[in-house]
Amino acid sequence: MFTESVIDESILTSFSKIRKQTLQLCEPLVNEDYVIQSIADVSPPKWHLAHTTWFFETFLLMHHLPHYQFFNKSFHHLFNSYYHGIGEPFPRAKRGLLARPTVNEVYQYRQYVDEHIIQLINHSSEIKRIQEILILGLQHEQQHQELLLMDIKHNFFIDPTFPVYRAVENKLLENAHYLSAFNYISAATVDIGYRGNEFYYDNESPLHQCILKSYEIADQLVTNQEYLEFIDAGGYQNPEWWLADGWEMLQKEQWQAPLYWQREEKNWRIFTLNGKQNLNLREPVAHVSFYEADAYARWRKCRLPTEAEWENYARTQAITGNFLENNYFHPKPAEKTQQFYGDLWEWTASAYLPYPGYQPFSGALGEYNGKFMSNQMVLRGGSCVTPQSHIRPSYRNFFQPEKRWQFSGIRLAREGKGR
Amino acid sequence: MFTESVIDESILTSFSKIRKQTLQLCEPLVNEDYVIQSIADVSPPKWHLAHTTWFFETFLLMHHLPHYQFFNKSFHHLFNSYYHGIGEPFPRAKRGLLARPTVNEVYQYRQYVDEHIIQLINHSSEIKRIQEILILGLQHEQQHQELLLMDIKHNFFIDPTFPVYRAVENKLLENAHYLSAFNYISAATVDIGYRGNEFYYDNESPLHQCILKSYEIADQLVTNQEYLEFIDAGGYQNPEWWLADGWEMLQKEQWQAPLYWQREEKNWRIFTLNGKQNLNLREPVAHVSFYEADAYARWRKCRLPTEAEWENYARTQAITGNFLENNYFHPKPAEKTQQFYGDLWEWTASAYLPYPGYQPFSGALGEYNGKFMSNQMVLRGGSCVTPQSHIRPSYRNFFQPEKRWQFSGIRLAREGKGR
Amino acid sequence: MFTESVIDESILTSFSKIRKQTLQLCEPLVNEDYVIQSIADVSPPKWHLAHTTWFFETFLLMHHLPHYQFFNKSFHHLFNSYYHGIGEPFPRAKRGLLARPTVNEVYQYRQYVDEHIIQLINHSSEIKRIQEILILGLQHEQQHQELLLMDIKHNFFIDPTFPVYRAVENKLLENAHYLSAFNYISAATVDIGYRGNEFYYDNESPLHQCILKSYEIADQLVTNQEYLEFIDAGGYQNPEWWLADGWEMLQKEQWQAPLYWQREEKNWRIFTLNGKQNLNLREPVAHVSFYEADAYARWRKCRLPTEAEWENYARTQAITGNFLENNYFHPKPAEKTQQFYGDLWEWTASAYLPYPGYQPFSGALGEYNGKFMSNQMVLRGGSCVTPQSHIRPSYRNFFQPEKRWQFSGIRLAREGKGR
Amino acid sequence: MFTESVIDESILTSFSKIRKQTLQLCEPLVNEDYVIQSIADVSPPKWHLAHTTWFFETFLLMHHLPHYQFFNKSFHHLFNSYYHGIGEPFPRAKRGLLARPTVNEVYQYRQYVDEHIIQLINHSSEIKRIQEILILGLQHEQQHQELLLMDIKHNFFIDPTFPVYRAVENKLLENAHYLSAFNYISAATVDIGYRGNEFYYDNESPLHQCILKSYEIADQLVTNQEYLEFIDAGGYQNPEWWLADGWEMLQKEQWQAPLYWQREEKNWRIFTLNGKQNLNLREPVAHVSFYEADAYARWRKCRLPTEAEWENYARTQAITGNFLENNYFHPKPAEKTQQFYGDLWEWTASAYLPYPGYQPFSGALGEYNGKFMSNQMVLRGGSCVTPQSHIRPSYRNFFQPEKRWQFSGIRLAREGKGR
Repeated sequence: MFTESVIDESILTSFSKIRKQTLQLCEPLVNEDYVIQSIADVSPPKWHLAHTTWFFETFLLMHHLPHYQFFNKSFHHLFNSYYHGIGEPFPRAKRGLLARPTVNEVYQYRQYVDEHIIQLINHSSEIKRIQEILILGLQHEQQHQELLLMDIKHNFFIDPTFPVYRAVENKLLENAHYLSAFNYISAATVDIGYRGNEFYYDNESPLHQCILKSYEIADQLVTNQEYLEFIDAGGYQNPEWWLADGWEMLQKEQWQAPLYWQREEKNWRIFTLNGKQNLNLREPVAHVSFYEADAYARWRKCRLPTEAEWENYARTQAITGNFLENNYFHPKPAEKTQQFYGDLWEWTASAYLPYPGYQPFSGALGEYNGKFMSNQMVLRGGSCVTPQSHIRPSYRNFFQPEKRWQFSGIRLAREGKGR
Repeated sequence: MFTESVIDESILTSFSKIRKQTLQLCEPLVNEDYVIQSIADVSPPKWHLAHTTWFFETFLLMHHLPHYQFFNKSFHHLFNSYYHGIGEPFPRAKRGLLARPTVNEVYQYRQYVDEHIIQLINHSSEIKRIQEILILGLQHEQQHQELLLMDIKHNFFIDPTFPVYRAVENKLLENAHYLSAFNYISAATVDIGYRGNEFYYDNESPLHQCILKSYEIADQLVTNQEYLEFIDAGGYQNPEWWLADGWEMLQKEQWQAPLYWQREEKNWRIFTLNGKQNLNLREPVAHVSFYEADAYARWRKCRLPTEAEWENYARTQAITGNFLENNYFHPKPAEKTQQFYGDLWEWTASAYLPYPGYQPFSGALGEYNGKFMSNQMVLRGGSCVTPQSHIRPSYRNFFQPEKRWQFSGIRLAREGKGR
Repeated sequence: MFTESVIDESILTSFSKIRKQTLQLCEPLVNEDYVIQSIADVSPPKWHLAHTTWFFETFLLMHHLPHYQFFNKSFHHLFNSYYHGIGEPFPRAKRGLLARPTVNEVYQYRQYVDEHIIQLINHSSEIKRIQEILILGLQHEQQHQELLLMDIKHNFFIDPTFPVYRAVENKLLENAHYLSAFNYISAATVDIGYRGNEFYYDNESPLHQCILKSYEIADQLVTNQEYLEFIDAGGYQNPEWWLADGWEMLQKEQWQAPLYWQREEKNWRIFTLNGKQNLNLREPVAHVSFYEADAYARWRKCRLPTEAEWENYARTQAITGNFLENNYFHPKPAEKTQQFYGDLWEWTASAYLPYPGYQPFSGALGEYNGKFMSNQMVLRGGSCVTPQSHIRPSYRNFFQPEKRWQFSGIRLAREGKGR
Repeated sequence: MFTESVIDESILTSFSKIRKQTLQLCEPLVNEDYVIQSIADVSPPKWHLAHTTWFFETFLLMHHLPHYQFFNKSFHHLFNSYYHGIGEPFPRAKRGLLARPTVNEVYQYRQYVDEHIIQLINHSSEIKRIQEILILGLQHEQQHQELLLMDIKHNFFIDPTFPVYRAVENKLLENAHYLSAFNYISAATVDIGYRGNEFYYDNESPLHQCILKSYEIADQLVTNQEYLEFIDAGGYQNPEWWLADGWEMLQKEQWQAPLYWQREEKNWRIFTLNGKQNLNLREPVAHVSFYEADAYARWRKCRLPTEAEWENYARTQAITGNFLENNYFHPKPAEKTQQFYGDLWEWTASAYLPYPGYQPFSGALGEYNGKFMSNQMVLRGGSCVTPQSHIRPSYRNFFQPEKRWQFSGIRLAREGKGR
């Protein structure tokens, strides 16, 4: 899954840095915040801290550090997310019902495992395999950094006092300079999938060819202002624009707008990690489901890009933008003409399926990605709560089409008009 | 609802003592324990601490202390249990989704309100009305002391590590001296309901006459040993003994034994506030639903006593026994021939309905008892988690017939045989 | 359960007449109407025809007619309602999923069983026991005649074409002569329960004494006009009037008015077995739950009568009124000053519980009544779809407090004012 | 969507023949069978008869026959399946709650519409557009012929008497001559989608190129014997083989085998339209979900073919096999070396998504296919209940991955081994 190399300082540095980053994200939390699970999709922050640690313990220390003693045997069951190869996981929907272990114990658990990882690295002779899993564990931890912020946001949202996670000076960002336009790409047979010598997930491979007709892809994300036009035009009242499953969900959940939007008298307000704010019309619309993205695109006489179309064009762009490291945790109005990485994950028209010749990781780690390849749609590009170092052009994120608590947005595409 | 008197030292003493008692019950908890709500019936301990405080704030300070400032306005909504007269309560099933206010803030809230109550008492001229509500608030707090322990027990039970609330030396109690027998009571017309000059709930009045045929009532509670005979005889597999609703519930919930019983290999173990223990056959069977109590009685060719039968006989007994003050928090084998108070609430055959001429408290406090008079059965006698001073012969507790997380047990009765 | 007698012509006549009456009630149905089950509470008409026949086959022919051959062995399971003593019943909620047996086969089944019953009567030597069960079977059939009409009404109601069961000339009935008033009854100790030598259900016995305080009981049922005042006063928006369980149900089911009421523009229309009609303000309000009856009474500063209060007064009235035999199948405005039998079943304030010393029928028939004695409230007096011969002053009907598809109405009561 | 032509005799013949075919499929039904809806997926046979008629009325007669009078106005709402462009459809899950219109009325409705269609054809001047919709309506009717048999089978299955739809002499078919093998196909860029001049659905177009690596595809369907090996090897107990969603569904629905399999003592029996039969090991395994097909393939170290792989190979095969016209209504053991059409729909590894440049039909008919393009998987090849004339190599059927009541089976594929 990734190339051979000897363990070097940079990985130790990454380990220390990424593990510390997770703790920094928790700094604004009070003890009680760690325990909450607002909906089944969400996990308590405490659980994320423990599970990412469990990952190192289970896939590295248990097998590779001689005489390793568990910090606490019950954690082996409690913090298994979904690896049946490891044992029966504790039920996901009940993670928020556990008071114990305490937050303090979880922090001790992290420290205990970190120390043993260092010990392992310094004394092991299986450097190559250890390094592979170590890198995977760090990638895994980065994914949970994003989940942490997604989940904290939702946990705070259901609290009628609407707590603020991190106060940011609320200057209204207005980048009016860049109006959205379509990039034209000629028909071609292109390579899709990971190419390179760094880490990548199994689901990004193998590299394979795709035939693309000519297409156009928007250079920026759909803004709140643009999306509001859809709402104001009755978009949520007209089944014409919606997939059948989407319309059913809309009616069942009484959707009237994206998640976190609240109408207060005549104005829309949105809940952010900076508390409730007035809707900034210049910002990209966030927290939409695939169904909403798809309906919006249809209403605009456009469509969503396929993941191949997205990757083919995005590969030409620099991986810079509004990422986790910004500590802004909210999408921004476009700051350059090509707004392709960061800010928001972008729904594609592609179902999450294996690439031709796909092979999952071996052993229990084979459950990491492959077993989720049904009923999900691919998202691309990373978001304002994704670590920048975590993103690649070939990176495939995936969610069920009705999910909205992730930082997801909309990029339009359409067939290439003759030139 | 209770008799006139001037405020006196004893009430101040009670206030201080009862409020402190609640905090003492929380001493074994760690911070995270306060936040959990294992099922909708249960409330987080933090919520009990706040709600009992809210009660004093809402019914006393708001109306009677001039210029009173709320500790936190959002609490007025958050900690309203079910008083629609006060406003729309925060949804019960979501109490465990709130991280904030923190435990520390709730403790501060208690102190703030306590100080203002003292201030109110010392300066008010409406002594009589204030004293009435103050006593009601203390009775209310005592009810929540019992709920606290019921709820902590259930919260701990769903944790696969089975935490211990308070470790007690586990000497197996065996009082083999007292074998259960039936007391015979002749037919009579009797007075039922509260008589006296102390506090009583509206639902205990008015005092009224009931015609009782001759009956027999067991002197002790049904023991684990006796109940085990029912289980071993296939009691949970035979619809013959069960009310239709009970049989449906048994099948839906897959009941095989009382709540908190777990079969480990060949032995029954039970979960207690002292952790998991071997089943003590001498102890009264606890945590049964009305359906189980009723089915057991039918299997024994007996029935449950009506609440009038219970009250009529129990009035002749001293109100002593295994109460909250024991700090044992678990029922004990009978320590005297007439085991009538404490240990376990006893299901009766009576639906919870108003007595003839019933009048609820006035105003929002009218919601305290009366509006629950449907679909519930009456229990009598108090339990090992009920404060002793809280119990009276006329005291009516009530739960839906399928509930089992309260400390409930079984006393048998039958028609009086001719003598 | 009832008194001894030899079989005589009158029973044969009853058998023939009551069995035929059931078929007459089905005459307006087309074949497809027999199969439908709109909600789990309702049974398909075909099922009622078969189940009442099954009752005679199971409790009489199987045991008492030598060499009896089943019409169809599968019916033994299919048409068992709830007698676990007979075997596992076919699931109630799935009765409407069975195409087979056909309606025609069910009619043949009825004829087959009827013939064998005649044969049994003519040749058996166990006359007394047979006659007892025969009478019980006929009482049972009469109960199902009422259920048939209740269920047909609901089945037709969910059809957007609102079929008419039986067209009746729609003359607006207006009996404005009798304004409702309260009858005053002095305090007394009274006998409650069945007294006499005819058939009665086990739940009406034993006869026992009750102490009644003085009370007042309305001479007529609450009318649509009176109930409309409650609706227009915001009765369905104000939790003050409602039991907690009732308010929860109201919110869950979005109750705005009694079942079968529909607001069309500014007018209320109601669905009847005669199709949709304008609301007749003089008619008694029908198809209310116990919660609505109780809330209405509270709003009127009254209460519902207990079943003892009802029986004590109703015993003084003639059992005449608007019954099934009228073929009107809808309540009428009061036609006499004391509207006590027929028209609508009247909710009482009494939970459905055993009388002191209650003994159920023996054997599987013991499941007839006793096992439903939880979570239900008693109704008294019969309705416009109850056979007149089926009603007695001591007759106890019972439904869960949230049910509304039965023909249920409201009679007010209150404490007796001093005179 | 299809090519121009003048209306000719062959279409009139098709109309008459296909409409008659539908009625022939209903001949074994008794009146009551037409009303049943065993689960929400299934529709009552009566509904299929009416809805296919509604389709002609709504899309042809209403717009193209001057002065057309509805047979019954309420049908416009009652028999709309899912076309929001036509109005709010009657709720799908409640189709089985409607007694009316009667079966007889529905037959009259069919005749009425048929007569008006003939009238329209004979007198209209818009021949081309009419012919287009007429053909679409007939294709639509053929789809419902298959649904009729799927639904009747399920309706009969839940009846504990297991009715026989059509008795067929039960000779055990054993074609042991053809053992399954893999066909090898070299890597190529291929054309996928409809090519030709006949009718096709919008979802089969546009014709487009796909790059296929070399692959192998089984020549026959997986048999009961082969699938039984999976079951006996604990396939339903081991999460290793299953997609996460599939494992969850398996646990929720307690799957132990394909739908319609029942273990009776030691033997497997299956329910068919010919009643219950012993499992024939030579027959293809039927009524499996996508999850089961996918898990089985993984266990065999294979995978499912993509729809492009399937179409590319199947295009080389004659469209003959065991179709509806056989009147066998059950899959047969392979009768030729390449078992590619008929018998069972074959799950593919492809999500049901639009082809590049997809355009739905215009107007309300645009809802025919496109709006279902989420959460479904493509199946190919037709089944023993599909009309032979309905099938094309490019034909795309689609179901949610958990559905099992359609006649679905498994074909294996794998990467092409180097040659």
